[in-house]
Order: sequence, then structure tokens, then C-alpha cells
Amino acid sequence: MPNMKLVIAYDGTDFHGFARQKGLRTIQGTLEDVISSIAGKPVEVFGSGRTDAGVHARAQVVNFQVDGGPPPSRYPYILRRALPKDIVVVSAETVEGDFHARFSALKKTYRYTLQRNRMPDVFTARYVWHFPWTLDVSRMETAAGILVGEHDFTSFCAASTPIENKVRTIYDLHLEERDTYLDIYCTGSGFLQNMVRILVGTLTDVGQGRIEPSRMGKILEAHDRQRAGQTAPACGLTLWQVYYPGLPLT
Amino acid sequence: MPNMKLVIAYDGTDFHGFARQKGLRTIQGTLEDVISSIAGKPVEVFGSGRTDAGVHARAQVVNFQVDGGPPPSRYPYILRRALPKDIVVVSAETVEGDFHARFSALKKTYRYTLQRNRMPDVFTARYVWHFPWTLDVSRMETAAGILVGEHDFTSFCAASTPIENKVRTIYDLHLEERDTYLDIYCTGSGFLQNMVRILVGTLTDVGQGRIEPSRMGKILEAHDRQRAGQTAPACGLTLWQVYYPGLPLT
Repeated sequence: MPNMKLVIAYDGTDFHGFARQKGLRTIQGTLEDVISSIAGKPVEVFGSGRTDAGVHARAQVVNFQVDGGPPPSRYPYILRRALPKDIVVVSAETVEGDFHARFSALKKTYRYTLQRNRMPDVFTARYVWHFPWTLDVSRMETAAGILVGEHDFTSFCAASTPIENKVRTIYDLHLEERDTYLDIYCTGSGFLQNMVRILVGTLTDVGQGRIEPSRMGKILEAHDRQRAGQTAPACGLTLWQVYYPGLPLT
Repeated sequence: MPNMKLVIAYDGTDFHGFARQKGLRTIQGTLEDVISSIAGKPVEVFGSGRTDAGVHARAQVVNFQVDGGPPPSRYPYILRRALPKDIVVVSAETVEGDFHARFSALKKTYRYTLQRNRMPDVFTARYVWHFPWTLDVSRMETAAGILVGEHDFTSFCAASTPIENKVRTIYDLHLEERDTYLDIYCTGSGFLQNMVRILVGTLTDVGQGRIEPSRMGKILEAHDRQRAGQTAPACGLTLWQVYYPGLPLT
């Protein structure tokens, strides 16, 4: 049975997150409804991971098994027409049968964007955290450097996170200034609930002088969510890239 | 009574246009409700002109008389907090008593944006016309040049336009390519209903080879909406700039 991989982009503003929830508009639910309707039978769609309500994706990856219905080569075209305007299929291809969007993923990159103008830009407001306050970017860079590596990120995930093992590896965490925007890129082996948003919120607390960069080590060691900084709002976060062995990047 | 001028930006997607309409979400209605509530009495807000449902503004200008309530200098701050996220007050200042956003305006610039990628970009989709078809930009430039000047634009406005005098002056109409976007800037003394959208739609018909650039003169002379091209969708259009004598540009 052909295994189809899609790269999709979405504006998460008007979705209740990725994961299907009864009665709510979600990315997975929308995809499954549309794809099942094309296939003429129920289809389960697997994502590389969940994104929270309001979080966007530039290149989320999903896969699903198709059997019958139109040939796989027709899917991109049909999906482009059938999906709402806030989900776009960037590419579609058939992949090996054992490819799984979540379990095959090697690492992921998220981008978080702050807009630092005094006034928000109405045309990017849905995709950024408007942050008109002063930030010391070099302090933030120092703190970011300490967070890179393999750590137990208990202090940097929602206190309610049910997963036992909170050890993850951050391969890269760096900041890029772009006009009046500040992009924070975070690449890791996997991410816990709210992890990127708490990392970013903590970095802004560092940038505003509320937390010393040198405290990052102690905060990691504490294994206590209370010790890290605020949770940055969902709207600034975008799933940027998912990496798979042997597959080209988007 | 102080006369206050605001420059505002808005994402027109979720508004039924600028002009107040009972029971519908409009820019003017939203502004008047918020400003009246701040002033503690009904306030009428005048815009430089109406924008259609779905049309955006980077720098729409409005004015209103304020009497009592908070001092004018407090308005920008209060308005920024009171308005929904899809209207932003870019600047606010008190101006001479005889300033009127509409009657004092000398000319206006609109920008219309086409996105020419094969696939739409989900993060700009609200603000562009996704146009994946081939366009001959130099043909469009030739046609645009013929439309500049003082003309009767009956052929380029909605057939239902009630205004008698349809003579307007286009001072500038030019195209700019920006990555995979094509921006069409149009500056004129004033614009009739749907005029920019019909100009743009006609230019795309020219770019696709359906209308010869040299026909522009004949289309103008015909005074017949049927002779011009299609009406481009509202979502690609942005009120870019309004010019007033003696006032600096935004």
C-alpha cells in the first residue's frame, strides 16, 4: 500500500493545535477529513509531532497509507484544492513503506520570532510575539550557549508533562536579527511540552535583565519548572524543519 | 475642539470593509465604537476613503473631533490597547481644525500584490493574489503606461458606480518585482469603485496575452465596463499611502 509523505505549511492561528480533538478545528482533523474523503475510506494521518494551539508550521511533515482512490501523483493537486486557505501542501511524494513522520524523524528545528518595533506590524502580527521592550541580545546569546547539549529539560517544560524521560539534546540554539525582528532558531532531538516557548520566554527574561545568563546551569539542574522564565506566547512559534535520514530538506 | 488625525493599518480579511454597516464588523464601526467609549460620547470618524471588504491598509488616515475625555496625547496609547489585533494605530497627532481625512487628501497610493509561486505562501496568503500562471511583465508595463494620465475611467469601475463624473487622474502606475511577488503601485487623484482591482485584473489579462497592451486606449474610450478585464480579488489590495498638503508621509 503506497505510503505518502506530505510537507505542509499552516497558519495555526485559527486551529486548536495539530492533534485531532472532537468538535474542534485541528490540523490533523482537517487533513484526515479531506484525505479520507478523497480516498473514499477512513485514513489516519501521522504528524512528525503535535504543535500547540496557535503554533504555525513552515514545513510540518505528515504521512499516511493510501490504497485505492486516485493515484498518489494526483494527491498534491487534489489536496491543494480541497484544503482551506490556512493549510498549504508544499510537496507530496510516495516514500518507503517503513517511513513514519514521527518515528523516522532525526531532529527538528523550530523558529520563534519576536517583533521589536514599538508598534506591531498588522501584517505579521499573527506570526510573531510583539516585544517592544529593550533586549540585550548578547546576554541572550550567552544563555542560549549554555542550554545547547544533552540535558534533562524538566525545568523547561510544562509542569504537567506526563513523559518520564525528559532528557533531550539541543543541537543548536541561536539568534538572528532580521530588520526589527529577532528570530530564535532551536534544533533538537525532540521537544517536550511548551519546551521551545519556555526556552524563548527564559531567554527574553535574560535579555531584559531579570535572570542572569550564568544561572542557566542551575536552572537545568533544579529540575523545577518554577525556576525557569515565562512561557512565550504560541503565536510567535513556527515548526521550521523536520530532518529525516536520506531525505532532502525542504 | 481638538481635531485628531490617526494613521492606521489593518488586515481587512475579517472586516466587511471600511464603511460602518449595521450589524457587521467594519473598520469605521470598530473605530467609532472604541473612540466613543474612550471619549464618553458618540464620536464620528472620517476616513480618507472607503476600502472594500477584504482590502487592507498600511496607512489609512482618519480624523475625528475630540472634546473632553482623556487628553489627545493619551489616545495612541489607549487606542493601541483597546483595538482588536487586526487594527493598529501607527501614529496619532492633533491637526488644524479644518483638516478632513477625505476632503484634505491630495492623492492616494494603492499597492496590489500578486504572488507568483506555484504554491501559495500560507504566511502571506491573506495579503496577496496567488497567481501561479505565466505573466509577461513588460507587456503589462506597456499597458500601464497608457493608463497613466487624466481619463474617464468608466470602463474601469463597477458598472453600478453611482458617481456621475468618472474622470480621474492616475499620476503613476508601475510594477515592481520583489522575489516571487509582483507589486503594482497605483497613485491617483481619487479612485472609483473597484477601480484599482479592475486596473490590476486588466493588466493581468494583458500579461497573460488575452488583451493587447495597445487596446488600453480603446478600452478607455469605450466608457464600458464590459471592455476592460477581470476584477482582481480584494485580498491582494492595500491602501498604501494618503498624501496631504504640508503633512509628512508615513
